[in-house]
Amino acid sequence: MSDPILFYFDFSSPYGYFAALKIDDLAAGFERDVIWRPMMLGAAMKVTGSKPLAEVEIKGDYCKHDWDRLSRFMGVPWTMPEKFPIASLAVSRAFYWLDDVNPEMAKRFALAAFDAYFGHGRDITDPDIVAELAMEQGIEPEGLLAAVQDPAVKQRLKDETVNAIEAGVFGSPYIIVDGEGFWGADRLWMVKRWLRSGGW
Amino acid sequence: MSDPILFYFDFSSPYGYFAALKIDDLAAGFERDVIWRPMMLGAAMKVTGSKPLAEVEIKGDYCKHDWDRLSRFMGVPWTMPEKFPIASLAVSRAFYWLDDVNPEMAKRFALAAFDAYFGHGRDITDPDIVAELAMEQGIEPEGLLAAVQDPAVKQRLKDETVNAIEAGVFGSPYIIVDGEGFWGADRLWMVKRWLRSGGW
Repeated sequence: MSDPILFYFDFSSPYGYFAALKIDDLAAGFERDVIWRPMMLGAAMKVTGSKPLAEVEIKGDYCKHDWDRLSRFMGVPWTMPEKFPIASLAVSRAFYWLDDVNPEMAKRFALAAFDAYFGHGRDITDPDIVAELAMEQGIEPEGLLAAVQDPAVKQRLKDETVNAIEAGVFGSPYIIVDGEGFWGADRLWMVKRWLRSGGW
Repeated sequence: MSDPILFYFDFSSPYGYFAALKIDDLAAGFERDVIWRPMMLGAAMKVTGSKPLAEVEIKGDYCKHDWDRLSRFMGVPWTMPEKFPIASLAVSRAFYWLDDVNPEMAKRFALAAFDAYFGHGRDITDPDIVAELAMEQGIEPEGLLAAVQDPAVKQRLKDETVNAIEAGVFGSPYIIVDGEGFWGADRLWMVKRWLRSGGW
């Protein structure tokens, strides 16, 4: 099997949510695994001098409309959460804590968190809600609540964010296939083509 | 026939170039005409507080790589012009001057200008080069050279840019179908779906 695909995203990113629903199926068609890497997009935005999409004049309103339209075209749940964007610290830390034990379990948890936030508007900045989502996946809530406050887990998320930026990640989602980067949920067609052709 | 599609772009925009090569064929499949509307993207960027892609940290390098890759996947000419981005005043004014006479001729001229700039790196900020490109299309160079200095034509481009921003245009390309806006060369699939389904 070839090298796994790297899937970078922020839990606060609508386009990250849309791509998360598709990336593993896409990769499976080419017998590739996907490694999920949540990150703090805000740190990358400081480097590029960008601000959150929803706060940009005109473009912000366009994107809100686009998310609604995209969910309709994809046939997936969508709601504009009351609290948006968010600092997705708790859920990202919980992800890495789970990922060290079982990456597939961490992905199921991540999809549940995305669905809770963007599908149903639940506040995933609240560790208790994050723990509740984990519990629905059969994960011990006490362990998770301790992990999101654990200095080592906190540092892990910081390190992963630094690593992501060093790898060229400046937006969410950002996908790396054999060293080649692709930015955006709209670029899955190009990821597919790259996987099929090796870049030609 | 249904209402025409509005195609907004800046001659300095690589993604505008890639979309220009496809939009009329796409629309023709749904028996729609396309009205081309070059604009000064810089004016829209002031509103959104953006800066030219190529000047953004990390993202700028990503995009340069992406243009090269996209041209390869599309099988179309590409070169990174030495002078980039440019203020595309002369070529945009020439476009509107031609558009008033014959929109199809103006489109052929626009495609020739895009091909000269992004296909072969010619400097389309130079009115003499713009006139030469027009001449190859059987257009009188003297008339064109006068038009690009004509206050009425200059004002026309300013007005079109203001109108575009008022219509919600903040990037290039930006396509409006029956009041619905689509941003980016990556969104042609969505334009197509919208034309087919009427938004569902």
